[in-house]
Amino acid sequence: MRVMVVQAPGGLDRLEMVERPDPGQPGKGEIRVALHASSLNYHDYGVATGRARAADGRIPMADGAGVVEAVGEGVTEFAPGDHVVSCFFPDWQAGPPTVADFSRTPGDGIDGFAREHAILPATAFTRAPRGFSHVEAATITTAGLTAWRALVVDGALKPGDTVLALGTGGVSILALQLAKMIGARVIITSSSDEKLERARALGADETINYRQTANWGARVRELTGGRGVDHVVEVGGPGTLPQSIEAVRVGGHISLIGVLTGRGGEIPTALLMAKQARLQGLIVGSRRDQQDFVRTLDGGALRPVIDRVFPLEGLADAFRYEEGGSHFGKIGVEW
Amino acid sequence: MRVMVVQAPGGLDRLEMVERPDPGQPGKGEIRVALHASSLNYHDYGVATGRARAADGRIPMADGAGVVEAVGEGVTEFAPGDHVVSCFFPDWQAGPPTVADFSRTPGDGIDGFAREHAILPATAFTRAPRGFSHVEAATITTAGLTAWRALVVDGALKPGDTVLALGTGGVSILALQLAKMIGARVIITSSSDEKLERARALGADETINYRQTANWGARVRELTGGRGVDHVVEVGGPGTLPQSIEAVRVGGHISLIGVLTGRGGEIPTALLMAKQARLQGLIVGSRRDQQDFVRTLDGGALRPVIDRVFPLEGLADAFRYEEGGSHFGKIGVEW
Amino acid sequence: MRVMVVQAPGGLDRLEMVERPDPGQPGKGEIRVALHASSLNYHDYGVATGRARAADGRIPMADGAGVVEAVGEGVTEFAPGDHVVSCFFPDWQAGPPTVADFSRTPGDGIDGFAREHAILPATAFTRAPRGFSHVEAATITTAGLTAWRALVVDGALKPGDTVLALGTGGVSILALQLAKMIGARVIITSSSDEKLERARALGADETINYRQTANWGARVRELTGGRGVDHVVEVGGPGTLPQSIEAVRVGGHISLIGVLTGRGGEIPTALLMAKQARLQGLIVGSRRDQQDFVRTLDGGALRPVIDRVFPLEGLADAFRYEEGGSHFGKIGVEW
Amino acid sequence: MRVMVVQAPGGLDRLEMVERPDPGQPGKGEIRVALHASSLNYHDYGVATGRARAADGRIPMADGAGVVEAVGEGVTEFAPGDHVVSCFFPDWQAGPPTVADFSRTPGDGIDGFAREHAILPATAFTRAPRGFSHVEAATITTAGLTAWRALVVDGALKPGDTVLALGTGGVSILALQLAKMIGARVIITSSSDEKLERARALGADETINYRQTANWGARVRELTGGRGVDHVVEVGGPGTLPQSIEAVRVGGHISLIGVLTGRGGEIPTALLMAKQARLQGLIVGSRRDQQDFVRTLDGGALRPVIDRVFPLEGLADAFRYEEGGSHFGKIGVEW
Repeated sequence: MRVMVVQAPGGLDRLEMVERPDPGQPGKGEIRVALHASSLNYHDYGVATGRARAADGRIPMADGAGVVEAVGEGVTEFAPGDHVVSCFFPDWQAGPPTVADFSRTPGDGIDGFAREHAILPATAFTRAPRGFSHVEAATITTAGLTAWRALVVDGALKPGDTVLALGTGGVSILALQLAKMIGARVIITSSSDEKLERARALGADETINYRQTANWGARVRELTGGRGVDHVVEVGGPGTLPQSIEAVRVGGHISLIGVLTGRGGEIPTALLMAKQARLQGLIVGSRRDQQDFVRTLDGGALRPVIDRVFPLEGLADAFRYEEGGSHFGKIGVEW
Repeated sequence: MRVMVVQAPGGLDRLEMVERPDPGQPGKGEIRVALHASSLNYHDYGVATGRARAADGRIPMADGAGVVEAVGEGVTEFAPGDHVVSCFFPDWQAGPPTVADFSRTPGDGIDGFAREHAILPATAFTRAPRGFSHVEAATITTAGLTAWRALVVDGALKPGDTVLALGTGGVSILALQLAKMIGARVIITSSSDEKLERARALGADETINYRQTANWGARVRELTGGRGVDHVVEVGGPGTLPQSIEAVRVGGHISLIGVLTGRGGEIPTALLMAKQARLQGLIVGSRRDQQDFVRTLDGGALRPVIDRVFPLEGLADAFRYEEGGSHFGKIGVEW
Repeated sequence: MRVMVVQAPGGLDRLEMVERPDPGQPGKGEIRVALHASSLNYHDYGVATGRARAADGRIPMADGAGVVEAVGEGVTEFAPGDHVVSCFFPDWQAGPPTVADFSRTPGDGIDGFAREHAILPATAFTRAPRGFSHVEAATITTAGLTAWRALVVDGALKPGDTVLALGTGGVSILALQLAKMIGARVIITSSSDEKLERARALGADETINYRQTANWGARVRELTGGRGVDHVVEVGGPGTLPQSIEAVRVGGHISLIGVLTGRGGEIPTALLMAKQARLQGLIVGSRRDQQDFVRTLDGGALRPVIDRVFPLEGLADAFRYEEGGSHFGKIGVEW
Repeated sequence: MRVMVVQAPGGLDRLEMVERPDPGQPGKGEIRVALHASSLNYHDYGVATGRARAADGRIPMADGAGVVEAVGEGVTEFAPGDHVVSCFFPDWQAGPPTVADFSRTPGDGIDGFAREHAILPATAFTRAPRGFSHVEAATITTAGLTAWRALVVDGALKPGDTVLALGTGGVSILALQLAKMIGARVIITSSSDEKLERARALGADETINYRQTANWGARVRELTGGRGVDHVVEVGGPGTLPQSIEAVRVGGHISLIGVLTGRGGEIPTALLMAKQARLQGLIVGSRRDQQDFVRTLDGGALRPVIDRVFPLEGLADAFRYEEGGSHFGKIGVEW
C-alpha cells in the first residue's frame, strides 16, 4: 500500500511517498481501516519539519478518517462499512488526563494516518459524525476535540457567556462555531480584515484587528462593558497571554492550548492572581470526550470550515500552504 | 478609642497610635465588635510600608477578631458575647469570585481592625471557631481562608493526594496542617533546616532545603516516584513558578497565591500546557467559604501555629520581625 | 395604590382588589419599583387557593416586573427608569442553596407583586433582559430560572445531549427552548397532539402523547437507541418519576421540580441506583443564577412563550384558565 | 485447581468445591493471579442464594486479592510477585459511569474469584495497598470502593462536613473510617447498642439506636443543631430513605447504594425537592477511582475492619454468618 513517510532528519522535502506491505487482518480487539483523509495541525507540522524529532520513516498525521474494512475478534462497537475517525491519544479512554507526551500519539511516537490502511485497537477510533465527509471527520481528532474540550469539557460554556478566540486557525474557527451554537457571544482577533469579515459571516459578534489594535486586551474589556470575557481560547502562547489575561474577567477561564509564539515568556502572574482566573493547560482530550463531540456533530448544525484540500502526494505542499498563513479554518488532505 | 493608623505616604515609622471617637451604636443590619487581635499578612505589610498606597490615616490590618458588643436591628445571626472574626472581602458573600481589587477590603480600601471597636454590617464577620483564642481566630481571615480555598474549595483535596507547600509562612503551614488533616501527603520547602525540622514535627512527610537543592522541582518528582504532586500551594510567584510547574503532575493543580518574588516573570507555558495542569489565581475566598472553614476548625483538630504575639502598639515591630523572615507560621497582634 | 390580596382562608373567590397607602420613598439600599406585570406559577396557585396557607391579606404573585422609580442611599446597581424583575428568593444571593421554605418568598411568606408599587432591597431584583416586555420579563423569576438551573446550572447541559421535558407548561417549554438554543435534542410529552405539534414548531425533535403511550419511559429509550436521555426536567413528581427513571441514561440527571402529581409516592429506587443516576431536588435558584440567565436572554435568541395575558383585576380568571390546563407555556398578568 | 461454584438454581447448599483445569499462561495484555482471599457483599449473597440468577456452575465472589504469577505480552503495569486486587467493573476504566448491569462483573456475569488462579486482562486488577493482608485488600473491590466513591468521588467530602452512616456493615464502617480520616463528623445508626459502642471506638461522634429512636431522621437534625447532615451513606433503600431525606441538610447529598430493604417504596419526593438535595444512585466505581483509593490506603492510616475470616470451603458458612447479621464490618474468606 502507499504510505507517506518523513525521512530523517525531517523537513518538508523529506516527506516521501513509499510502498509498504499490506497490514493484513486485524487481531483480537483490533480493526482494519481504509483511510481516506487527514487534516493539518501545528503538531503535525513540527513532525514533518523535524522540529519535533520523530523516528526515521515515521508515517505522519495524527488525524485519520476512513471506513472500517474488517474487525477482529471481540470487536462489537464497529462493523465493516462504518465511518470512523482516529483518536489523538489512543490510550486515554476517559476521565482526567494521564498523558503529557506524544510517545503513543499517531504521527509522532507511533505511525500516523498518511497511508491507505491501518490496523489498530478499536479503541483508537470513534465513529465519525453522521453525514460528514472524510475530510470533515478528520478535523475532529486534533483541532475539533481541542476546541470542544476547551469550551465544553473544561470551560462548561453556557449561553450568555462571552468567548475570545485568537486568530482564525482551525481550533479558533471551530471554537467560534461551537460557542455560537451554544448561544454564547464571540469576539475574535486576526491581522486580516478580510478574515475578520469571514469570521463575522460565521457568527462572530465582535472582531479586532490586532495589527491595528496592539492593546487588544483592553479593547476586549471595552467590548464587554469592562467586565472581560468568560473564556479565552489561547492558541498563541507567551506572546499573546499577557493580553489574554488582560481580557479575561474576574474568575474567568483561559484555555492554554498554543505554542505558536514560543515555549515560554514573560507572564503577568500577579494580574492572573488578582483576576482569580484559571489558566488551564490542555492537549486535545479523551476518547470519551470525542464520542460526546461526535454525538453533537451528528445533528449537522455545525460543519468544520475546510479552507482547501490537497491530495496525499501533495502533503508537503499542504504544509507549505499552512506556512503561508493565508488559510482560514482547516487544511485537509484526501485520497 | 485607641486606633493604629498609617500616615501618608506609609512606612513602618509612619504607623501611629491615635485617639478616635467611639463609633457609637450599630445601625440596621450592623454589629459593634470589641476587637482584641489581628495577625500579619504580606498584604498588610504592603499597606503599612506604603507600597500598596492606601488613604492617609488608614487603619491597617485585614484580620480582626473579637467579641460582639451590640447588634443592630434585624441582626439574628449574632448576639452580644459571640466571638467573631472578620471577612477579607465583606461584599463577597458566596459563589464564584466577583472582586479583583482591595477597594472594599478592611485595612486597604476601607479601615481595618487595628483598633478597639468597629461597627460594620453583620455580614462582614463570621463566628470564630469554638475554643480558639482571638489571635488564633484572627489568622483565619486571610492566611487561613487562603489555604482552605486553595486546597479544599478549588483543589478538592482528597486523602492520598500529595501537596507541595512552598516555605513556612502562615499560608503554607496552615496548608500543611489542613493537608495532613485530610490524609494527604505533604512535601514542604524552606531555606532553613531548622524550619524544615519543625515542619516535619507538624506532619510534613518530605522536606527540601531549596538552598541546597536549587532544582527542587525535579526533587519533588523523584519523591513522588516520577508522578509529580497533585497540588502546589504557590505563594512565591514568578520566581518559584517554573519549578512548581516542574513539580506538578499531569492534570495537577497549582494555586497561584503569591507575589513574594514579583508581579511577573518568565514562565514555561509550554510545560504547563504539556502537563495539562491548572494554574488557578486566587485571593482569599467568600464569606460562605469562611463559614465552612470555621465549622471545620470547631473540632479543634487543627490549631494555627502562632510564632509570636505583639501588642497593638508594637505593630511596627511586628512588621519588622516579619521582614526578618525568621518566623514560622503566623505573627499575631493582641490587645 | 391598587393591590390584589388573598383574604383568609384563600380561594379564587377570595382574591380581592383593595386600596393600600403608597409605600413612600426607598431607604438605604432599597429601590422603589413601579410594577407592571406578573406571571402564574403552580406555587402562586397554591397561595391563591389557600392550599399553601399564607397570611390573611397577603399580596400574591412571586413574579414581578416593572420599572425603577427611585433608588435609596448607596444603591449603585440600578437607576430610575431601569427595567427590573424580581427574585424568588431575595435572600439567596449566590452559591449553593441555603433555603428550604417560602418564609421570605414574595407572594408567600412576604407580600408579592400583584400591586402597583413596591419597595424592597435592591438585591431582591435583577435587571430585566434587554428588549423584553414586562410580561416576558416576569416569567423569568420562577419558571424561567427553574428551567435555567435544571439544565444549565445543575445539569451542565452541553450540545449533543438529549433532554426529556414533561408536558407543555411554563418550565417545560422554556426548558425546550433553552435546550434547543444549546444544541441539544429534545423529547417532549403531552396528552394533546395539538400541543405536541406546537412543541415541534418550537424545535422539539420527538414528541410522545402519554395518553396513547402509557409506558413512555420505554418509548424514550427507543427514541435514543436504547441509551436513554441525559436530562429529565421532571415537573410531574411521584406520578411520573418511575417512567422518568426508566427514561434516563446510565449516569444521567433528573431535575426534580414538580409536585403536580403529589408529595410522595412509590419510587423504584433500585432502578435509580442501577442507572447510577442523579435525582436532584431544586427550587428556582439564586440571584446570581438569575443574572447569568438575564445576560443570556439579552441576546434575544429566546423569548418566553406567553399563552395569554390577563389584567390584574382578572387574576382569579387567570388562575381558572390555568386550572383548565389548556394553556401552552406561560400565562401572564399585566397592568 | 480448586474452585468454588454455584450449581443451578443457586442456594447456599448449592455452593460446591470442584476441580477445574489450571488456566495456563496469560495472553497478550493479561495477567495470571494466584488468589488468596475474598470478602462477602450483599451482591455476592444474591448470586450464591440464586436470587440474582447467574449461569449454572458460576464461580462466585466479586472481590479477589492475591499475587501476580505471570504477565502476558505488553503488560508493564504489573510484575510477578505484585499484590493485586480485582475490579468490580473490569470494563469501566475511568470517567463517568457507563454500566448499569452485572453482565461483566466477576462472580455474576463472568466467573468470580472463589478459586486458586485466574487469568484476566491486567486492567481487571489494581495493585493492593502497601502493607495490607490479602483479606484486607479484598474488601476494597466492592465495599471499600463504594464508600470511597460515595463520600470522596461523588460527595467531595471535606473536613467539617457531617456524615450519616446507616448500620454497621462493610460499606458503612468504611465510610465512618474514611469520614473520620478526612476530619468530618460522623453519626451512625444501628439496632445494637454494642455495635454502636464499637462504632464509637472507631471514631463515631454520635450514635443512634434506630430500634429505640424510630424517628431517627429528626434525631439527626437535632444532633446537627437543626441543620441536617451534609452526606448520607444510604445503604438501606426504600425502608430508610424517607428518614434519610428527613436527616439531610438543604443542598445535601444522599448516596443511594442499598437495596437491603427492597427495590422500591414510598418516597417523600416533595421533601427531597424542598431540601434541594441530591439523591445519587451509584454502584461501586471505576478502576481509576480504585487506584486513587489504593494510593490513599498506602499510608496505612485506615485499615478495614474484618469481623471474621472463613476458609474457602466454608463459604456457605460465611454467608450463613452474614445472614445472621451479627457481624460488624467485613466478613472475609482466605485460602
